[in-house]
Amino acid sequence: MGSNQSVGIVEPKTAVLGDLRLDNGSVLSPTVVAYETYGTLSPNKDNAILICHALSGDAHAAGFHSDSEKRPGWWDEYIGPGKAFDTDQYFIISSNVIGGCKGSSGPMSINPVSGKPYGSSFPFVSIKDMVAAQKLLVESFGIQRLLCVAGGSMGGMQALQWSISYPDALENCIILASSAEHSAMQIAFNEVGRQAILSDPNWNNGLYEDNATPRKGLALARMMGHITYLSDHKMREKFGRKPPIGNLLNSDFAVGSYLIYQGESFVDRFDANSYIYVTKALDHFSLGKGQELTKALSPAHCRFLVVSYSSDWLYPPSQSREIVKSLEASDKRVFYVELTTNEGHDSFLLPNQRQEDVIRGFLKMPVNE
Amino acid sequence: MGSNQSVGIVEPKTAVLGDLRLDNGSVLSPTVVAYETYGTLSPNKDNAILICHALSGDAHAAGFHSDSEKRPGWWDEYIGPGKAFDTDQYFIISSNVIGGCKGSSGPMSINPVSGKPYGSSFPFVSIKDMVAAQKLLVESFGIQRLLCVAGGSMGGMQALQWSISYPDALENCIILASSAEHSAMQIAFNEVGRQAILSDPNWNNGLYEDNATPRKGLALARMMGHITYLSDHKMREKFGRKPPIGNLLNSDFAVGSYLIYQGESFVDRFDANSYIYVTKALDHFSLGKGQELTKALSPAHCRFLVVSYSSDWLYPPSQSREIVKSLEASDKRVFYVELTTNEGHDSFLLPNQRQEDVIRGFLKMPVNE
Repeated sequence: MGSNQSVGIVEPKTAVLGDLRLDNGSVLSPTVVAYETYGTLSPNKDNAILICHALSGDAHAAGFHSDSEKRPGWWDEYIGPGKAFDTDQYFIISSNVIGGCKGSSGPMSINPVSGKPYGSSFPFVSIKDMVAAQKLLVESFGIQRLLCVAGGSMGGMQALQWSISYPDALENCIILASSAEHSAMQIAFNEVGRQAILSDPNWNNGLYEDNATPRKGLALARMMGHITYLSDHKMREKFGRKPPIGNLLNSDFAVGSYLIYQGESFVDRFDANSYIYVTKALDHFSLGKGQELTKALSPAHCRFLVVSYSSDWLYPPSQSREIVKSLEASDKRVFYVELTTNEGHDSFLLPNQRQEDVIRGFLKMPVNE
Repeated sequence: MGSNQSVGIVEPKTAVLGDLRLDNGSVLSPTVVAYETYGTLSPNKDNAILICHALSGDAHAAGFHSDSEKRPGWWDEYIGPGKAFDTDQYFIISSNVIGGCKGSSGPMSINPVSGKPYGSSFPFVSIKDMVAAQKLLVESFGIQRLLCVAGGSMGGMQALQWSISYPDALENCIILASSAEHSAMQIAFNEVGRQAILSDPNWNNGLYEDNATPRKGLALARMMGHITYLSDHKMREKFGRKPPIGNLLNSDFAVGSYLIYQGESFVDRFDANSYIYVTKALDHFSLGKGQELTKALSPAHCRFLVVSYSSDWLYPPSQSREIVKSLEASDKRVFYVELTTNEGHDSFLLPNQRQEDVIRGFLKMPVNE
């Protein structure tokens, strides 16, 4: 990769923003957004890039929260001095989605009326709502126009939504491993994940207490999700038919104990209600296909980069091409790259020199090209 | 299809057979096998075909148990007068695997020592053991040599195992939508299914009572499994992004309520322990790859038909080709067909004129060709 430099220690921040009328009519008040920034905002505020995270991500996209943190933020490979999202040039904003559980308004927020977490009484949040909250955050910096909005998977949906919700507020849009709407199969995997949580005796209609959360259901949802993020090839390479290491985890196979471990560690860092809210936001996001999609995208006038990954069977390249086709049908400026990878849907998160070059090149290209 | 004729009303039967020493060293005594037969055994007993079922199948492959039964056996499309497995010519035997829950020895059998079902104290059963029990059943008819052993998915593994466990006891072997061993991804899906059952509070280490079975866990396992049996294309066609019909089942989407329904109806007809035993038999079945597989298959001297399906992403055509390649490497007589279908792994179960023609042609071809 281009650089091993890190943005170093970063400080998680929280913005308490104005009221937000959600898609479903309810009003979020206040709108709290957890975020981080990397790099320096230019005096004329024209170098800001917004990074949008995927289902289980958060605002911590780069650097470290402390010297003792073992792993950097989730997209540290691509954000930093000299990296694709070059913090020597750009001011990067990364925020947690509303409906999530990493500091932004969501089911874990305290309902001022009851003094307890909202849980399942939190209003439904759409991808459009997530983007609206990000817009409030961006405005709080006095930024009128972002240089770019970028994201993979659910982050790509947010970037796409930005291009039509606020067409004047971004110059470039980067959509990686994403889709204009979920297929029946994508919905199906999410639905089984939700049903796993709903089947947990601790579920309690989403009004569970801190000391009795639906851990088993959430772990199952994560295990299943995790399979869909990998590729057959990657799993063969990583695990094959090997037996588990040690005998701590209840499986006859390495791949089984890996998934069990992934499930168990996920529940320590994610909330079951948020999992339901965010997967529902994913499943309900729908800009349509063909002419319907072309029409939905018509307000956009930024420049687009769409990237898909050959081994991604969860968000297959055909879904990216659907977006590209509709953008081209209305003469938008769009670049499309299908990267050959072995890592499945996770590809966009992993080190990839070509992805780095493609993003860097796109951002550096004069905007009228 | 070639014929709409049915074998009509069939009688489920049970054979109480001799002791069986299992792969893991334990002895099954007696070995009980539930079975059905269709057609008539020829005087010199040379027209018998054994049908092997998949994970959730049973001995009821064709016809009806009574006039009031709504749906015929699971492979009625292919078994009957004038059909691919023509009951006017062949004597068809179909049996439930041991380890299963449809009448053959398995976790639901009563342990004579305790007077209660074995549950999880039933010994581990391998694909080889399932086949050994079938061999006892076949011998009980005085049949020394089967005209053919045929099956899809797990049934294909059994057919393959027959060819090497009892090379003199079959003339033909039909392996549909199957594999010589599970990949990490196939194991992974089964593992999450098993973990769903183990996470159910009713699991009780597999010693659950009839009135408190791990229904929710088993339903989740089935829901997830069901996704893998279909194709992206089929799900789009069948459900797309449609809302659920009615509001009875807890999903925002038709595909979700379909899966919930499939899960709930499965638990009424399947046992959670058997699900664990049979998926473990699948995952542990391993004849290797390449030279190792060629060596494993060396005892076989029957003729083979291997069929794969273009839309089957759970048992992809590459796994069938692996078997074919190894058979060819040691000069076995093998025919391979990849059928173009849209129905995913389930394809082999569904009406398909080409599949019917291929099976019929293979069986009618003089055996030395």
